[in-house]
Amino acid sequence: MRIALAQLNYIIGDFDLNTAKIIETIEKCKLQQADIVVFAELSVCGYPPRDFLEFDDFIQKSYKAVETIAAHCKGIAAIVGAPSRNPDEKGKNLFNSAWLLAEGKVQALAHKALLPNYDIFDEYRYFEPNRSYNCITYKGVKIALTICEDIWNLVDDPLYVTNPMDVLSLQAPDIMINIAASPFNYDQQTSRLEILRVNTKQYKIPIVYVNQVGAQTELLFDGNSCALDSNGNTVAFCKAFEEDISLVNFNLEKRSLTTESRFKYESPSKTALIHDALVMGIRDYFAKMGFSKAILGLSGGIDSALTLALAAKALGNENVYAVLLPSEYSSGHSIEDAVALAENLGCKYDTISIKDGYNSILNSLQPYFKELPFNVAEENIQARVRAVLLMGLANKFGYILLNTSNKSEAAVGYGTLYGDMCGGISVLGDVYKTEVYELAHYINREREIIPLNSIVKPPSAELRPGQKDSDSLPEYDILDRILYNYIELRQSPADLVASGFDEAIVKRVLRMVNMNEWKRHQTPPILRVSPKAFGQGRRMPIVGRYLS
Amino acid sequence: MRIALAQLNYIIGDFDLNTAKIIETIEKCKLQQADIVVFAELSVCGYPPRDFLEFDDFIQKSYKAVETIAAHCKGIAAIVGAPSRNPDEKGKNLFNSAWLLAEGKVQALAHKALLPNYDIFDEYRYFEPNRSYNCITYKGVKIALTICEDIWNLVDDPLYVTNPMDVLSLQAPDIMINIAASPFNYDQQTSRLEILRVNTKQYKIPIVYVNQVGAQTELLFDGNSCALDSNGNTVAFCKAFEEDISLVNFNLEKRSLTTESRFKYESPSKTALIHDALVMGIRDYFAKMGFSKAILGLSGGIDSALTLALAAKALGNENVYAVLLPSEYSSGHSIEDAVALAENLGCKYDTISIKDGYNSILNSLQPYFKELPFNVAEENIQARVRAVLLMGLANKFGYILLNTSNKSEAAVGYGTLYGDMCGGISVLGDVYKTEVYELAHYINREREIIPLNSIVKPPSAELRPGQKDSDSLPEYDILDRILYNYIELRQSPADLVASGFDEAIVKRVLRMVNMNEWKRHQTPPILRVSPKAFGQGRRMPIVGRYLS
Repeated sequence: MRIALAQLNYIIGDFDLNTAKIIETIEKCKLQQADIVVFAELSVCGYPPRDFLEFDDFIQKSYKAVETIAAHCKGIAAIVGAPSRNPDEKGKNLFNSAWLLAEGKVQALAHKALLPNYDIFDEYRYFEPNRSYNCITYKGVKIALTICEDIWNLVDDPLYVTNPMDVLSLQAPDIMINIAASPFNYDQQTSRLEILRVNTKQYKIPIVYVNQVGAQTELLFDGNSCALDSNGNTVAFCKAFEEDISLVNFNLEKRSLTTESRFKYESPSKTALIHDALVMGIRDYFAKMGFSKAILGLSGGIDSALTLALAAKALGNENVYAVLLPSEYSSGHSIEDAVALAENLGCKYDTISIKDGYNSILNSLQPYFKELPFNVAEENIQARVRAVLLMGLANKFGYILLNTSNKSEAAVGYGTLYGDMCGGISVLGDVYKTEVYELAHYINREREIIPLNSIVKPPSAELRPGQKDSDSLPEYDILDRILYNYIELRQSPADLVASGFDEAIVKRVLRMVNMNEWKRHQTPPILRVSPKAFGQGRRMPIVGRYLS
Repeated sequence: MRIALAQLNYIIGDFDLNTAKIIETIEKCKLQQADIVVFAELSVCGYPPRDFLEFDDFIQKSYKAVETIAAHCKGIAAIVGAPSRNPDEKGKNLFNSAWLLAEGKVQALAHKALLPNYDIFDEYRYFEPNRSYNCITYKGVKIALTICEDIWNLVDDPLYVTNPMDVLSLQAPDIMINIAASPFNYDQQTSRLEILRVNTKQYKIPIVYVNQVGAQTELLFDGNSCALDSNGNTVAFCKAFEEDISLVNFNLEKRSLTTESRFKYESPSKTALIHDALVMGIRDYFAKMGFSKAILGLSGGIDSALTLALAAKALGNENVYAVLLPSEYSSGHSIEDAVALAENLGCKYDTISIKDGYNSILNSLQPYFKELPFNVAEENIQARVRAVLLMGLANKFGYILLNTSNKSEAAVGYGTLYGDMCGGISVLGDVYKTEVYELAHYINREREIIPLNSIVKPPSAELRPGQKDSDSLPEYDILDRILYNYIELRQSPADLVASGFDEAIVKRVLRMVNMNEWKRHQTPPILRVSPKAFGQGRRMPIVGRYLS
């Protein structure tokens, strides 16, 4: 049996587009003598459809799309992902299902049993878990067909009380097929290959794994669909971060899996992975929103420099517009560095002073501010005047504003709400400052694109004379390690102190993280590259007093 | 047995405060000869603790707090809510538990079986559902002890496949006690009383129901704890929207429930309920954030007028500062109406023209805007200059900015991001424009507080000459009905057209709703008063094409 792994980029709710893509791929695979084409989890509607699943009309549209696709499955079969209605009176009304389509119609369904409901996942919000397991047979091959999380429970401290493959394996399947929507983080591909290997070892049959690719706002799907033989060796791989199709041949007698493809997976560095994920994230956000042009404020600092470089890569240098918005506290160096970068990248740039806007706002407030000393109020006004100028240009000319804040700043609330925290999408909001430097060096790996000066100078918001980030924050190497241990690892203050951090600094940092939940609530969606990003995957009370 | 219903207002994560409150209440109830005091679901940590539950340190603190409370349960028992660790290796690590404390220690635990995971609820994210049910006995009384959702499955099309009370009732309990954290919406109290009645009718024993009270950011808990006898008659009620304790006497032989209290529940109007909920929401948001003073932009329109009136009620007129920010397009009437309102309420107000700020920004952009016609870019600049001025004052003097947008505007994206969509909390973001009018009349029920002119004049953003909302939007009575049917009822375009709405208007409105998800993503938390509010209870893809 010849199996095609079809790794496509879907648009949530665009049934016409997804259906057309799926049918086109089925036709392509037919020409390549495939017997069965496997698509990703919820491929028909796109993943994650979120609360669209609560609209009966959405479900009806999905059913119709499946029918349309099935009509094209003649002389070839397909496995697609789509919601299905739960016929039982009790329980939630939907299943998350894999549909086997052949001979022009629906042949069988397999429902997802393990519904992830942690981090960015909300599947138990919509779906009833499957409780009855049956292999499906196509062309004499008995397939253990599962969906994403279903194969992830083979770990210590398992999250679920059942393990679907344990039941399915009693029916002596010949092969496992798993359809997935498994979002990227810089550790995910390692974990994924490991869990696939553990499954082949446990059940001693090959596995075909098909993931979706492309960005769905903050969620980045890297694809990396693959097939492993029964010894856990990788036989075939789809490319990361792009649409791709791989073909494998399954020999039923030997239960062996082979391929003619020459593509070999090489494990990129964490920095390269983040780079590629962010580029895809920017590109897809714009494409799927129907926009082509980005604008951003270029300060001469490292964060906006890196954002510009990534955006130029994603959208083309001609589609990214950099605006320098110096204040009276901006150093001459900052402006030179910003200009050098824009010229290195070939991006259009302009310089607009914020002095007039700032002074005018201050004048209007003078009767109230009177002789009160300059403080964070005036600092914020500068950042907000910048935002008004950038958004004015964005609204007038149809740009989307890119947010340039990094994860360290977002964590401790070091940024101005409605100022530098503005934007349609946050590019670096899941990238710690220390990782920002690594990415900048990666951008410069062949030649100096980001001026070295932007990389080596002490970070500063330049909102008051001689200001440095380190006036208000611990040094970033310490800050980032504390943040990582608290946010990603959920360590307690006592854990942190025990591992050598200064108690006063730990308390101050954790307090800042918790006190700034209200600010993060109003920030743009953040491209997710870590296992624990700010946004829908981290849900904290805004009003609360834990640790504060 | 004398049972106390202890309806308190908790702070999430503030174990010291919650523990002290609970202990103080236990002592109070001891003086009133109570045998057992019942507190709300997760009362020890406050509800909803959200991802704090993922911190082991948080769970440890909760365990310690329970121990401290237990030590005070001598000569009296208490039922409190707190997470407990799941001793089983499989499944999630926590249960959502009710703890019976007596004789200085923990006597028994009952775990929640039905974990709500819809709308604003995420309980399956954290908790393993209970699968084994046992009544607990105290002083010879067999109690069916359940938690919130556990008693809500007695409906058509049940959401869960099990029904805990069906199992518990086989053990012949004498009384049901349900501890809850059931948030307000204008329909909730009716549904709640109905489900309590259905339970007493089904199981033929009395029920004691204890809810938490107070606001947790957007979630408003109305309390309304109560006790019903086995015929479904309400015997005792705690007050709505405030802390309260009620005492009931349970006679074991007769299985009867009586009280000495004279408080009688009267069902307020929907408008009165929303009014009281919003006032509590504002008050608690400020109190729990540690702020006392609010600022807002007062336009002379109905939305900011209503917000000011509600804020003055919640925080005291001396703590609310109204700023009039007229533009060249503001009518004279608007300023007069705004001034009249501030004076009626006795709130401090000032007038700051946005003309200078606006012109200065426009001048800075002139080299780029050139001769391009005035459009939404200039409109937005006005709204954003207002926000810069308001936030400047807020930052300088320690105010929280109140957002004044209503639900109709939020739905269709009729507002300026980083402009009038700014604020720490949105007061009216779950109140449709037509309901705004009803609330304004309610405020004026005894005397004209909100100038009649603000109520009767055609709504306008006043961002260009002669502008009216109806230039861009359908009339609000039509718009609001379409929005309600789409957002609250999840109707399809076909449903809407079938019920008589114009097809072109339906398509336009629904498209606006879906296309503005990106804007709503960056808005402040919205005080939730309806069964389907924007915010954490409605999770839609930002990038998607359904219906657009």
